[in-house]
Amino acid sequence: MAEAVITMDGWCTLHDTRTFDWASWKMTSEQERSEAIAEFDQLMSKWEKTEDEKNGSQSLYKVVGNKADLLFIFLRPSMDELEEIKREINKSKIGDYLIPGYSYVSIVEMTMHNPMDEGKDRVLDPKVEARLKPILPKWEHACFYPMARRRTEEANWFEIDKAERTRLLYDHGMTGRKYAGKVREIITGSIGLDEWEWGVTLFAHDPLQFKKIVYEMRFDEVTTKYAEFGDFIVGNYLAKEAVATYFEL
Amino acid sequence: MAEAVITMDGWCTLHDTRTFDWASWKMTSEQERSEAIAEFDQLMSKWEKTEDEKNGSQSLYKVVGNKADLLFIFLRPSMDELEEIKREINKSKIGDYLIPGYSYVSIVEMTMHNPMDEGKDRVLDPKVEARLKPILPKWEHACFYPMARRRTEEANWFEIDKAERTRLLYDHGMTGRKYAGKVREIITGSIGLDEWEWGVTLFAHDPLQFKKIVYEMRFDEVTTKYAEFGDFIVGNYLAKEAVATYFEL
Amino acid sequence: MAEAVITMDGWCTLHDTRTFDWASWKMTSEQERSEAIAEFDQLMSKWEKTEDEKNGSQSLYKVVGNKADLLFIFLRPSMDELEEIKREINKSKIGDYLIPGYSYVSIVEMTMHNPMDEGKDRVLDPKVEARLKPILPKWEHACFYPMARRRTEEANWFEIDKAERTRLLYDHGMTGRKYAGKVREIITGSIGLDEWEWGVTLFAHDPLQFKKIVYEMRFDEVTTKYAEFGDFIVGNYLAKEAVATYFEL
Amino acid sequence: MAEAVITMDGWCTLHDTRTFDWASWKMTSEQERSEAIAEFDQLMSKWEKTEDEKNGSQSLYKVVGNKADLLFIFLRPSMDELEEIKREINKSKIGDYLIPGYSYVSIVEMTMHNPMDEGKDRVLDPKVEARLKPILPKWEHACFYPMARRRTEEANWFEIDKAERTRLLYDHGMTGRKYAGKVREIITGSIGLDEWEWGVTLFAHDPLQFKKIVYEMRFDEVTTKYAEFGDFIVGNYLAKEAVATYFEL
Amino acid sequence: MAEAVITMDGWCTLHDTRTFDWASWKMTSEQERSEAIAEFDQLMSKWEKTEDEKNGSQSLYKVVGNKADLLFIFLRPSMDELEEIKREINKSKIGDYLIPGYSYVSIVEMTMHNPMDEGKDRVLDPKVEARLKPILPKWEHACFYPMARRRTEEANWFEIDKAERTRLLYDHGMTGRKYAGKVREIITGSIGLDEWEWGVTLFAHDPLQFKKIVYEMRFDEVTTKYAEFGDFIVGNYLAKEAVATYFEL
Repeated sequence: MAEAVITMDGWCTLHDTRTFDWASWKMTSEQERSEAIAEFDQLMSKWEKTEDEKNGSQSLYKVVGNKADLLFIFLRPSMDELEEIKREINKSKIGDYLIPGYSYVSIVEMTMHNPMDEGKDRVLDPKVEARLKPILPKWEHACFYPMARRRTEEANWFEIDKAERTRLLYDHGMTGRKYAGKVREIITGSIGLDEWEWGVTLFAHDPLQFKKIVYEMRFDEVTTKYAEFGDFIVGNYLAKEAVATYFEL
Repeated sequence: MAEAVITMDGWCTLHDTRTFDWASWKMTSEQERSEAIAEFDQLMSKWEKTEDEKNGSQSLYKVVGNKADLLFIFLRPSMDELEEIKREINKSKIGDYLIPGYSYVSIVEMTMHNPMDEGKDRVLDPKVEARLKPILPKWEHACFYPMARRRTEEANWFEIDKAERTRLLYDHGMTGRKYAGKVREIITGSIGLDEWEWGVTLFAHDPLQFKKIVYEMRFDEVTTKYAEFGDFIVGNYLAKEAVATYFEL
Repeated sequence: MAEAVITMDGWCTLHDTRTFDWASWKMTSEQERSEAIAEFDQLMSKWEKTEDEKNGSQSLYKVVGNKADLLFIFLRPSMDELEEIKREINKSKIGDYLIPGYSYVSIVEMTMHNPMDEGKDRVLDPKVEARLKPILPKWEHACFYPMARRRTEEANWFEIDKAERTRLLYDHGMTGRKYAGKVREIITGSIGLDEWEWGVTLFAHDPLQFKKIVYEMRFDEVTTKYAEFGDFIVGNYLAKEAVATYFEL
Repeated sequence: MAEAVITMDGWCTLHDTRTFDWASWKMTSEQERSEAIAEFDQLMSKWEKTEDEKNGSQSLYKVVGNKADLLFIFLRPSMDELEEIKREINKSKIGDYLIPGYSYVSIVEMTMHNPMDEGKDRVLDPKVEARLKPILPKWEHACFYPMARRRTEEANWFEIDKAERTRLLYDHGMTGRKYAGKVREIITGSIGLDEWEWGVTLFAHDPLQFKKIVYEMRFDEVTTKYAEFGDFIVGNYLAKEAVATYFEL
Repeated sequence: MAEAVITMDGWCTLHDTRTFDWASWKMTSEQERSEAIAEFDQLMSKWEKTEDEKNGSQSLYKVVGNKADLLFIFLRPSMDELEEIKREINKSKIGDYLIPGYSYVSIVEMTMHNPMDEGKDRVLDPKVEARLKPILPKWEHACFYPMARRRTEEANWFEIDKAERTRLLYDHGMTGRKYAGKVREIITGSIGLDEWEWGVTLFAHDPLQFKKIVYEMRFDEVTTKYAEFGDFIVGNYLAKEAVATYFEL
């Protein structure tokens, strides 16, 4: 039996996609639309205040393609807050047009495996707190995908010994380091919470970097041999100031 | 041919998720909404009475993410009662807004495998009855997932001998024991009743414990080699007193 | 090349699930509801007459969980009649509320494999006809699931020789015999007709027996090694006399 | 690298299933329904003329079970005509009630493998043209299913040599010949056109023969080892003269 | 660890399918329909101008079968433009009837593997730019499908060495060359962007060539052993001039 990895866990995370019901929105009067946008603006202001006070973080993205129109990412100290936020959106006026789609529930996670976490970094560095309770970078693009480790006879991640897992993840981390400044990554764990084992959220100024990093990492031994991937969703950052324009007819 | 395990079986169980149709709810008059909530409150009172009389148990959860909005868990002596409860919800006023989603049908199950069940515990202990007909703990969070055992050539749970199965489950039970007081678990069997072989319902005060226990158990040999998992759903307890607020616009 | 099994084939079978649209039903006037129920009652009477004349059989079940609300099982001499019955339901008043769901098309099947069918039983026994054209038992509970046999390199049901298949099915039949009086079973073949290879319909007075028999059979070598299962659906018998109450608001 | 098979290709084929919206149909006035049926009758007449002139062929089937209500099969010289026919149905009055469902795009295909095609048959026989541009038999029942050949390490159809493929398909063809007069078959290729590699459309006077032939063929080595099947759909022939009755309330 | 391939990346690409809501379209007044078509014509003119200025490219196809009615393919320098185009369609009048369906997000990709790219071609040839920023050929038919490379123990594309990958793709390219003038191909990479690893878009004057090339390539070693395919979608080119006729009732 392989040794289980100790994780450090941070904020609860909700990835929440929505399809916008443009046909119904067009049938709504201009005044009602204005009121709905104004109310949504207040919601966003409240969320921003939470972020300013470092009690959570969030970002909103315009999704490319038809999987969804919008992707919200919310981080909060508790699952209660995540459910309340969902309900608050649904109860709001604009919520009638934001048809709920695919979502993902997870918790920000750091493990001992990551070489960046060893020794001084993890224990002494005050940045550990910042990594477990991260303020999402307001970069131009985000990418989310869930993943799992294989448990087949030939490649069973949960059966190989810890040193081997550490070695494989160290190499993987080295690939990631090449993208410093180009791609930021937040790992969230979802074992016991959602369909896959981990969620990966990437941020970039240029979405081509999502392709570059995930492509290059696919050649990493740990990926080649042990990784299974869910679907990928890519979005463009939607700042609070641009929301009214987004919904404008 | 491996020896089949003897199971002890308790209450029939229905996990029933619902998506709330907030858009239609908002178009309903305040009076109709009040009446619908009052009627639902009476239903809950009736269910609570059943629980008080130890003729069943239930709990209601606010689901995190978009898989559903509410998760009902009902335990009753018969499948007839489970179908009647579903129909009663659907016939009720608020039922028009509680769009049925994923559900799961199973029966509370205890097997000889579990070391906690051996010898005195199972036969002598009056608590066996309580475990087969459990009153659900009203803890803050619940997690449900279905699972199955592999039947591949390399790892066929139903082919290995009983002693080996007992050993594997004993080790697994030892991992579970570490979470005593933090996580409570109810195992329900669904072979012949629903899509997977078992359902696992976990209860915790802190939802992080769902992640901790399922993560740690993933390294147990029985999981690593023999387990397949369905989707996970996590909810926050919704007490009867808080229902009106939940639906309040 | 293994020898193909000779099958004896009986009535065409349709398993037809429906979700009831309670929200629309409530918006219908009491008179219209009464008329719809009366018309449905006539349909059921017509079907019962067919059963009385031994030209077919059927039963109706209240489904547990949200997969469906009602499960019809129809057996008729021809596929034409099965399609006509579906259309007759859809054209009826209550058909507007009976949203079609999952269905399954198959034909009652007996094979030489089954030890109960060998020699005298099959040829001499006048009960063969009754087994190929069965009148469904009006027991309290039914369970339906489709299944297939594996065709992998390690376990290819259609490649092993007939004697081995007979041996495996004989053992399987022995497990089934233990449930005589508790569980009745109708096997229908669906190769060339629907998604899986066979459909299994079980009847029981106590739905726990569905779990018991399918669980115990999972340890049979033929299941352990060669079986793949689709989804299971469980229902409670709905007698004609109880239909009005079922739909009553 | 195995030698690719030369195919001879005929008419483009569309299998198009529709669910009929009976609830909306009932809300339509009798006059509108009559007009819709009359217009649909004209469409069918136009299609029949095309068939009479040997510029295409089609048939319409009443589907058994809830996968669909109607199955159209259209064969035409070009993909353009197939798209135009779909659009013509959708633009027609009755198109509002014919909700599009599962469809399949393919091209009639003959390969050198089939023993019936060897030597004289294929080149000299004027019937080859008739097989590539077949007029669909108006037999009482049809069955459609898509399939593919395996590409696993143990059984890779596209890797074994041509002589072996020919041998396997010859044996398979011998099974088929047993059903001469009972089952007719049209093979269409869909590699590069739709989800699976081939479509199989069977015609029979007795639908039991679909079960018999597909069952017996499952024991053929080529099926046992190399075949993967999609879903099966079975329908009863709906002649033009019976269309009005089909839609009659 | 195998060496990752260097890719050259071009325009961002969106494949966007839509189902047309003919029933609602028919309920719209003739004037509103005319306005909707005129507005859509303006949108297309704007897109054409972008193409004329070599700042992007697009084509529109009438889909065969019921997977969708229309397929848009858009190529633009940025993901922002792709999202804006989607939103512009959705905000337009005709957008109310163009129900979003399956979509695919990718980036035009050239790799060192392709023999046509070696040496002079890639670096010296000014056509590389044209291949990375391709103006879509307005040929009569298009075919789109996504694909991935296997990562199993027996066949792991990302583990074999680069020379082997180059050899396999060289052979594959040779098959493709046979179709010069008959089939044009654009490869887009979607690792990190969408569900599969690559998208393949083919163009042909005769759709039979889609079947011919994909069929023949299925025998290429690289396909036989390493390829997994998603669903295929085939469409007929819809020129701007023919749009009004397409929507005409």
